[in-house]
Amino acid sequence: MEKVIRVGLLGSGTVGSGVVQVLEMNREQITERVGAPIQLKTVLVRDLAKKRPQLAGYQLTDNYEDILNDEEIDIVVELMGGLHPAREYMLQAMEHGKSVVTANKDVVAQFGKDMFAAAEKHGVDFMFEASVGGGIPIITPLKQCLTANKVTEIMGIVNGTTNYMLTKMTDEGCDYDAVLKEAQEKGYAEANPSADVDGLDAARKAAILSSLAFNTRVELKDVSVEGITKITPDDIDYAKSLGYVVKLLAVGKDSPEHGVDVRVHPVFLPKEHPLAAVNGVFNAIFVRGNAIGEAMFYGQGAGSLPTASAVVSDIIDVSRDIVNKAFGRIGCTCYEQKPMCPIEETESSYYVRLLVDDKPGVLGQIATAFGDAEVSLKSVIQTKRNVVDHAEIVAVTHIVRHASIQKALDALKQLSVVDEIRNVIRVEKERG
Amino acid sequence: MEKVIRVGLLGSGTVGSGVVQVLEMNREQITERVGAPIQLKTVLVRDLAKKRPQLAGYQLTDNYEDILNDEEIDIVVELMGGLHPAREYMLQAMEHGKSVVTANKDVVAQFGKDMFAAAEKHGVDFMFEASVGGGIPIITPLKQCLTANKVTEIMGIVNGTTNYMLTKMTDEGCDYDAVLKEAQEKGYAEANPSADVDGLDAARKAAILSSLAFNTRVELKDVSVEGITKITPDDIDYAKSLGYVVKLLAVGKDSPEHGVDVRVHPVFLPKEHPLAAVNGVFNAIFVRGNAIGEAMFYGQGAGSLPTASAVVSDIIDVSRDIVNKAFGRIGCTCYEQKPMCPIEETESSYYVRLLVDDKPGVLGQIATAFGDAEVSLKSVIQTKRNVVDHAEIVAVTHIVRHASIQKALDALKQLSVVDEIRNVIRVEKERG
Ligand SMILES: NC(=O)c1ccc[n+]([C@@H]2O[C@H](COP(=O)([O-])OP(=O)(O)OC[C@H]3O[C@@H](n4cnc5c(N)ncnc54)[C@H](OP(=O)(O)O)[C@@H]3O)[C@@H](O)[C@H]2O)c1
Ligand SMILES: NC(=O)c1ccc[n+]([C@@H]2O[C@H](COP(=O)([O-])OP(=O)(O)OC[C@H]3O[C@@H](n4cnc5c(N)ncnc54)[C@H](OP(=O)(O)O)[C@@H]3O)[C@@H](O)[C@H]2O)c1
Repeated sequence: MEKVIRVGLLGSGTVGSGVVQVLEMNREQITERVGAPIQLKTVLVRDLAKKRPQLAGYQLTDNYEDILNDEEIDIVVELMGGLHPAREYMLQAMEHGKSVVTANKDVVAQFGKDMFAAAEKHGVDFMFEASVGGGIPIITPLKQCLTANKVTEIMGIVNGTTNYMLTKMTDEGCDYDAVLKEAQEKGYAEANPSADVDGLDAARKAAILSSLAFNTRVELKDVSVEGITKITPDDIDYAKSLGYVVKLLAVGKDSPEHGVDVRVHPVFLPKEHPLAAVNGVFNAIFVRGNAIGEAMFYGQGAGSLPTASAVVSDIIDVSRDIVNKAFGRIGCTCYEQKPMCPIEETESSYYVRLLVDDKPGVLGQIATAFGDAEVSLKSVIQTKRNVVDHAEIVAVTHIVRHASIQKALDALKQLSVVDEIRNVIRVEKERG
Repeated sequence: MEKVIRVGLLGSGTVGSGVVQVLEMNREQITERVGAPIQLKTVLVRDLAKKRPQLAGYQLTDNYEDILNDEEIDIVVELMGGLHPAREYMLQAMEHGKSVVTANKDVVAQFGKDMFAAAEKHGVDFMFEASVGGGIPIITPLKQCLTANKVTEIMGIVNGTTNYMLTKMTDEGCDYDAVLKEAQEKGYAEANPSADVDGLDAARKAAILSSLAFNTRVELKDVSVEGITKITPDDIDYAKSLGYVVKLLAVGKDSPEHGVDVRVHPVFLPKEHPLAAVNGVFNAIFVRGNAIGEAMFYGQGAGSLPTASAVVSDIIDVSRDIVNKAFGRIGCTCYEQKPMCPIEETESSYYVRLLVDDKPGVLGQIATAFGDAEVSLKSVIQTKRNVVDHAEIVAVTHIVRHASIQKALDALKQLSVVDEIRNVIRVEKERG
């Protein structure tokens, strides 16, 4: 008799119910591609009493043991979210010889190493394509399609909420609070938006991407994080007039001189950069490798069906391994422990916007403060746009060490003509 | 003793020498990723007397038998190009139990089916990531990462030469002949540019992509092809003023009503479309699936190192299969034979540019000719821009059947007020 691949699903919320739907709507094609049918056997729910019309016909349980101890179940698909008990459930599944597919960036970012080790120990697969970029294929490309490269840089727009907000601010000139409120009303932002707007969600994804891209173990605590809460319509305006757009980026760099440098922060991106055209809730990940040059992967970074696309494709991949008895073909690729670049050593060009006294000689004092800190300037504008009684100075620096810009900012704070350091944002250099 | 994976390389031109370079420069990392070293053992060349400094230290031969009969060689990498003897060499390699990696779009488009059958029969791998989009991962995504989807549409900028030319024409307003000459001088276009500018190269890639995306066998002869030779600066100008850019696209669509529709032709693409920003020698492939929605894969579509990135990543993938004894995990996915949509049945919106007599009533006659053919118009402009003594009429139609637009064009040709049908170009509909 032909093998049937049996799946246990943990959680049927946004993504879980998308997975149920995709397995149903593309059933025949999936069977062809695997060479065996995939059957969703049991779904773990929290409350058995709750009505779930989309799960009619499936076996439900509120006891994980029913899935764990079911020897027929080959694959556990974890879509509950959160660290616990998701982590424990996945580890237990692998101990019981079941492969695991998940979309859980929290667990992968924090406990990825344990997961890979368990998969290897128990001879099963651990797959997590949906944990970064929703439906966009990026984990498999990094583990497979780009393996000929030393990846030197990744840059991703990996948080749809903040990209939606920044796009709105850019297109319509609205301010941060207004656009946050609208994003919340449309369901793009949570009631408590902190994980998105403060950059933590993007930081988890930055850790996952960098670990894979650079073959090293990057943890959440290694990522320096800055959100979008301080971005104002004025910054976006200046960006525009200088030829940039403002994006929240997850950035990872690896070089023999500096080590591995991973951070999340807003940047001024040249408007010709392929990431600059990635708008609204779309995500994209840009990769630079020493053979391929530049590549970019683009698509919907969230949502029920797009995310389910990645989860079900992982289920198909694992199923092919089961049918062909070929587990662990591609193990953990994070086999090195490279040194991290301390943030002070990182290098970038910066945009600095200052509120200053509107009187002669101010520009000279400010230029001197930058110069003394060995920060050379590419452009400076002094303007009365958007201000009364004062002036604004907008400076863009050449590429400098983070420590130097900090020193310059400290000196600027001491100047009596400087009333406020209004914003400091990294500038991605022109391409080519 | 640890297994060493041994490679025989056929041809060391642009891509072949890139492969040698990538295997050398990333050797350690590649060994880690495979779990065994990859050794380039023998290189087939045509002329042993020719100096090849980049191959110093490798064993050269001008006799394929030396590779075919070398039992130590696990993988044959074909980078000679052309149909013959490339096809025969690859089939023989597989018969001898060797896996094959190639960048040869000609052979994959024309004899792909034989290749897949041979790989399956002999229990080896046949890989061809580099055959479409150079370094861009697109074959593996279609075979693996997007398998949960029914793919309904692919659209690709898959020919760098023509994209370079159209980008130049758009940015600088130069005409076709000038830009072709420049592309030839820069080495982006061949002395005989026909395969590029007439769309044949893109058609091969369209056949490969559609076969994989739609699980069916699309051959070169099934692709309707139109090149860029008729595109003038005026067309590009009108496109701009209507909010479009002109791109040469490889298009594949699959629907239950119409069957599979594969073609290569210039299109007016809305400037907000993700493909519209793909400029110069860059390539990109846009995919629409019933779960993922929209996705796009972007990068360098040609060149020594970018293409070698794809070839070497394939070599690594095959090597992992060898180390893990896991061949044929993903076989040919083109298991169906779906009906092709006859070109007359395809549907599109069209831009039609006519040279007409400059006198009253002309617009009415023309609108009537369209209407009689059941082609409804979205916009019509009558203008004296770019013409003397005459006028031009530029019409954009709603979505109509190809047969209807042909009928309208036949009627227009009969009108005495129509002096010339200057161009007819498909228009990709607005998104969203
Ligand atoms: N949504 C997206 O677009 C997206 C994109 C990429 C990745 N992800 C990731 O996918 C995962 C799931 O996200 P989601 O948006 O689908 O979340 P969700 O809509 O909140 O769904 C989670 C489901 O899991 C259930 N659940 C939670 N804890 C459980 C437990 N201990 N036992 C049984 N059931 C439990 C919840 O049941 P109750 O209804 O009873 O609470 C809920 O139905 C998360 O890791 C998330 O980060 C989501
Ligand atoms: N170039 C790109 O950017 C690119 C991108 C994607 C895919 N591809 C594909 O990659 C393949 C190779 O392209 P390429 O640009 O590297 O071509 P190329 O520079 O012309 O190199 C081909 C090499 O193969 C050798 N060769 C041809 N027939 C041979 C035979 N019968 N025996 C031994 N050696 C033979 C040639 O040797 P001689 O020098 O003696 O003629 C030459 O060195 C083609 O299928 C092409 O379509 C190329």
